[in-house]
Amino acid sequence: MSRKKIIFDTDPGIDDAMALLFLSRAPELELVGITTAMGNGYIEATTRNALYLRDRFGLAVPVAQGASRPLEGEPSLPPTWVHGDNALGDIDVPEVSASAAHALPAHRFLIEMIKRHPHEITIIAVARLTNLALALREAPEIAALVKEVVVMGGAFGTHGHTGNVTPLAEANIIGDPQAAEEVFGAAWPLAIIGLDVTQQTLMSSAYLRELVAHGGEAGQFIWDISRVYAAFHQSIGVADGFFVHDSSAVAYAIDPTLFTASAGPVRVVTDGFAVGHTIQSAPGAWGERPDVQVCREVDSARFLALYRRVLCAPAQ
Amino acid sequence: MSRKKIIFDTDPGIDDAMALLFLSRAPELELVGITTAMGNGYIEATTRNALYLRDRFGLAVPVAQGASRPLEGEPSLPPTWVHGDNALGDIDVPEVSASAAHALPAHRFLIEMIKRHPHEITIIAVARLTNLALALREAPEIAALVKEVVVMGGAFGTHGHTGNVTPLAEANIIGDPQAAEEVFGAAWPLAIIGLDVTQQTLMSSAYLRELVAHGGEAGQFIWDISRVYAAFHQSIGVADGFFVHDSSAVAYAIDPTLFTASAGPVRVVTDGFAVGHTIQSAPGAWGERPDVQVCREVDSARFLALYRRVLCAPAQ
Repeated sequence: MSRKKIIFDTDPGIDDAMALLFLSRAPELELVGITTAMGNGYIEATTRNALYLRDRFGLAVPVAQGASRPLEGEPSLPPTWVHGDNALGDIDVPEVSASAAHALPAHRFLIEMIKRHPHEITIIAVARLTNLALALREAPEIAALVKEVVVMGGAFGTHGHTGNVTPLAEANIIGDPQAAEEVFGAAWPLAIIGLDVTQQTLMSSAYLRELVAHGGEAGQFIWDISRVYAAFHQSIGVADGFFVHDSSAVAYAIDPTLFTASAGPVRVVTDGFAVGHTIQSAPGAWGERPDVQVCREVDSARFLALYRRVLCAPAQ
Repeated sequence: MSRKKIIFDTDPGIDDAMALLFLSRAPELELVGITTAMGNGYIEATTRNALYLRDRFGLAVPVAQGASRPLEGEPSLPPTWVHGDNALGDIDVPEVSASAAHALPAHRFLIEMIKRHPHEITIIAVARLTNLALALREAPEIAALVKEVVVMGGAFGTHGHTGNVTPLAEANIIGDPQAAEEVFGAAWPLAIIGLDVTQQTLMSSAYLRELVAHGGEAGQFIWDISRVYAAFHQSIGVADGFFVHDSSAVAYAIDPTLFTASAGPVRVVTDGFAVGHTIQSAPGAWGERPDVQVCREVDSARFLALYRRVLCAPAQ
C-alpha cells in the first residue's frame, strides 16, 4: 500500500496532539513534516509543544515554525480555558530550544516539500490557515502540485451547527479570515471538515478509559492532557467527554468514505458582524472560484473504532 | 371580527399587484394605506402603478410615495425581464398625475398613521425596506406602537433555498441591505417570509385559469399581468406557473397558522461578497438584538385555497 505523505499544520493544542498521535500511527499515512501555527497558543508555545510531542513520541520529522500573527491584525488571545495555560492541558512541558525547529519558516518549508514531492503531499491543516496562505502568495504554483488539502475549520449550518467563537464563526477561521478566504479559493483539491461534523463525534470517559487500558503510553498521555478539555466541555453542556475536532481531518485523510460531503465553492466573510462565517454555494455559483468538498456527515461509530484501532495497535 | 389595519409597503410589481388584490379583499384585513418603494421599478413607476391599481380596483386609501433610493448608494436597475418594462407585465397603464399621491412622503405617512392608531397597524412590507428604516430613524418610538411588521424578503437556506440576485441575497434585501439591518433590529414584532417559503408555493396555469373563470375582473387582470412573469419563471426552469412571493406575506397577516417559523435574531450583511445575506441566529445569540420570526415552512395547499377563496368570493 502506498502511504500518503502528510504535512500536519497544527497549533497544539490538546486535540491537535491527539490528532498527531493518530496520524503518526496510521499505516495509511506517512508523516513527513509538522508546521506550527498560532491559535490554541501563541506561536512560541505551539512550536514548543510540537517539538515536545515529536521528541516524546519519537516522530523523526522536521518541525517548522509558522507565522506569529494572521495576515491582518494581531493574533487572538489563546483560549486557555479550553486548552490550559500551556495549550497542552497543563501537563508538564519542558522548554525546548528554538534551534530545534527547522531552519525554514513554515510556509517556505511547505513550498519546498511540495516541490520536492510533486502531487504527493497531503496537507492536513487544523489551525489558522496563515501558513498555507503565505505559501500560496509566495508560490501560487504549489496549488497544482499538492495532492490534497484537508482543513478542520468553519461551521456550515448542517443540523444547525453554529460557530464556537461567534454564532457564525469557528476559531480557526475567525483567527485569520483572510487566509481562509485565500486558501479556500486556490485551485487545489480541498476538503473542509467544520464543526458541523466534528461535533457529531464525542469521545466519552468510557472510550478514553479504553484508550488508557489498551493504548499504552499514548493512551495515558491522551487521558492526562484532556482533563482541562473535558472540564471545558462540561462547562458548555457536554455531560460526558468531548468533541473530536482535529482528528476528524486525519480520519478524512485516512478514509474519506467515513464522510459525506457537498461540492461547491466556499467563501469567508472577512469583516463585519459575520466575520469568519464560512458559506458554501452551489457549484459554479461564484464564477471561477473552485468547488471544494464540505463534509456534512460522519459515520461516528466507524470513526471512533478506527481511532481506537490505530491508537491501540501494537507498536510497529 | 376585528379587522387588522394594514399599510402595504410595495413596489408594484406583478406579484405585488396580486398581493394587493388579495389583501384588499380579505375579510380579516382592512387596508388603510399604501406606501410605495423602489425595486421592481423606479419610484415614479411603482407609485404610478400603485395609484393605477388603487383607482382601477376602487381601493379608497391614500398612496404615499416612498424613497427614490436606498439609504446608501443608488437604486438598482429594475428587473424588466421579470416584471416587464412598466413593472406591471407590460399591460397598458395610463400615466397618473403625481398629485394623486398623498402629500406626505411614505415614511412620514407611516409615522403619522402608526401614532394615530397605536398598537393597531400591521405593516406588510414586500419591497426594499427603505421607507420603514427612514420612519424608524425619524421616530424610533413607532417600534413600540406598531402591532406587527410582516416582511417578504431574504433567503435563510431552509431546504437549500438561496438568493435570487446573488447565491446569498434576495432582491428586497440586497436592494437596501442597511435598511433591512435596521428594520430587523428594531424592537417591534416582526415576521420574515423569505424565498425559503415563497418558493414552496407555485401558482400553475390550471390554478390561474380557475381564477380567470371565477375571479371576475381581478382574475382576468391577474392573468393579463402575469404573462411576462410566467415567461420569466419558465426561463429559470419552472415548467408551469410561478412562485408566490408577496402574497405569502399577506397570507401570514391573515392566518399565521399557515406557517411554521423559527425564533431568533436576524442580521444582514451590508457589504462584501455576501452583501444582502440574511442570517438568523439562536435566541439571545446577539445580545440585545430582538428575536424575530423567520418562516420556514408553509402549508401551500391551504394557502392556495385561501387565495382562491378570497379572490373568487362574491364582491361585498
